[in-house]
Amino acid sequence: MRRIYRSDLEGVVNELVVMSDSIQIAVRDATRALLQADLQLAERVISGDTRIDAMHDQLELRAFTILARQAPVAGELRTLVAVIQMVAALGRMGDLAAHVAKIARLRYPEHAVPEPLAENFSRMSFLAQEMIGNVGRVLAERNLEEAQTLAEQDEEMDNLRSDQFRVILGDDWEFGVEAAVDVALLGRYYERIADHAVAMGRRIIYVITGDLPEGENWPST
Amino acid sequence: MRRIYRSDLEGVVNELVVMSDSIQIAVRDATRALLQADLQLAERVISGDTRIDAMHDQLELRAFTILARQAPVAGELRTLVAVIQMVAALGRMGDLAAHVAKIARLRYPEHAVPEPLAENFSRMSFLAQEMIGNVGRVLAERNLEEAQTLAEQDEEMDNLRSDQFRVILGDDWEFGVEAAVDVALLGRYYERIADHAVAMGRRIIYVITGDLPEGENWPST
Repeated sequence: MRRIYRSDLEGVVNELVVMSDSIQIAVRDATRALLQADLQLAERVISGDTRIDAMHDQLELRAFTILARQAPVAGELRTLVAVIQMVAALGRMGDLAAHVAKIARLRYPEHAVPEPLAENFSRMSFLAQEMIGNVGRVLAERNLEEAQTLAEQDEEMDNLRSDQFRVILGDDWEFGVEAAVDVALLGRYYERIADHAVAMGRRIIYVITGDLPEGENWPST
Repeated sequence: MRRIYRSDLEGVVNELVVMSDSIQIAVRDATRALLQADLQLAERVISGDTRIDAMHDQLELRAFTILARQAPVAGELRTLVAVIQMVAALGRMGDLAAHVAKIARLRYPEHAVPEPLAENFSRMSFLAQEMIGNVGRVLAERNLEEAQTLAEQDEEMDNLRSDQFRVILGDDWEFGVEAAVDVALLGRYYERIADHAVAMGRRIIYVITGDLPEGENWPST
């Protein structure tokens, strides 16, 4: 019984890593759809979110079932609760990628992001994918060092968002209100993806060490 | 032992109701600060969010402790897991109220929301407060009917947001890019508060009935 239980738990953690791969791809594709005004790709990301939601529901149910049937304690309990919270965070990231794709679709055949900000969003997307990949590796390898880099990446993400505001609110902005509003909301979506990755990193540190990172509140998903 | 356990669980649920009261007040005050350009009140909401975060951390820890020490099963386990997720949702709502207050502070002594949209935001705030109040009552009284009204309120919230977009993207918009961006982000914050309330309502239905509402996915916080 005990061995079955441990393999159940490992199975759920493995599925989390698989889910994080799917989210990485959703972010990549949503950004391509956005920057290349690719309607087909945008549609694929939007319909793909149903699959991510299904992964979410299934994985959450598995975690609940282990909780309910096996009454885990201590470290295993902590892992399971963290898993439930991380599944929710990954589900939200998938929703946010779909939000990006929906703005791409809404503005098609136009580009939602004006040329001067394309590079900025490209970098945001790269960072978001890196962060999700890091979370996956931290989870799979219980690698605490990788978790530390998430904070630095999040800081770069915040700086990119500040740059966006400087551009859209600057005197040189010539793309009008609609494009500025799109940029502000899109930037928010990427920033939130990064926030969720950071929160997941902290949860994994908590699971591994039993301690919250120093000076940190327990992160909310 | 069994009786102690049940009172522990009730204690946590009561604290959730108390926390939802605090969130309601935060939303009310943040909106007042926003619409009246009241810097002092904005500061109070922002610093008050630390207290809400502390409630979140403490309540989550209590729920974890019950989980860990008392190995609940079936309905009680379901309640506890839902409590952990609802605590996270309330924590996020508090953050969102603080985001509203930060925009009020950023634009002070100006009003972030131009006059033609003040009524819209006032209604959004009213609805958000109603929804949080409903969630509190559903929780306290296990009242399923109250949970149904959340969906209607959420629909009105979505309509209010659509109205905002029509105004800021319309030809008559004379308040510039910055105000439009503020409105778009502020509208997003209220909409997210409502989404969290709906998700909480569904979780409570799940706790009470053991079933997810028909045709609904398990909501992500």
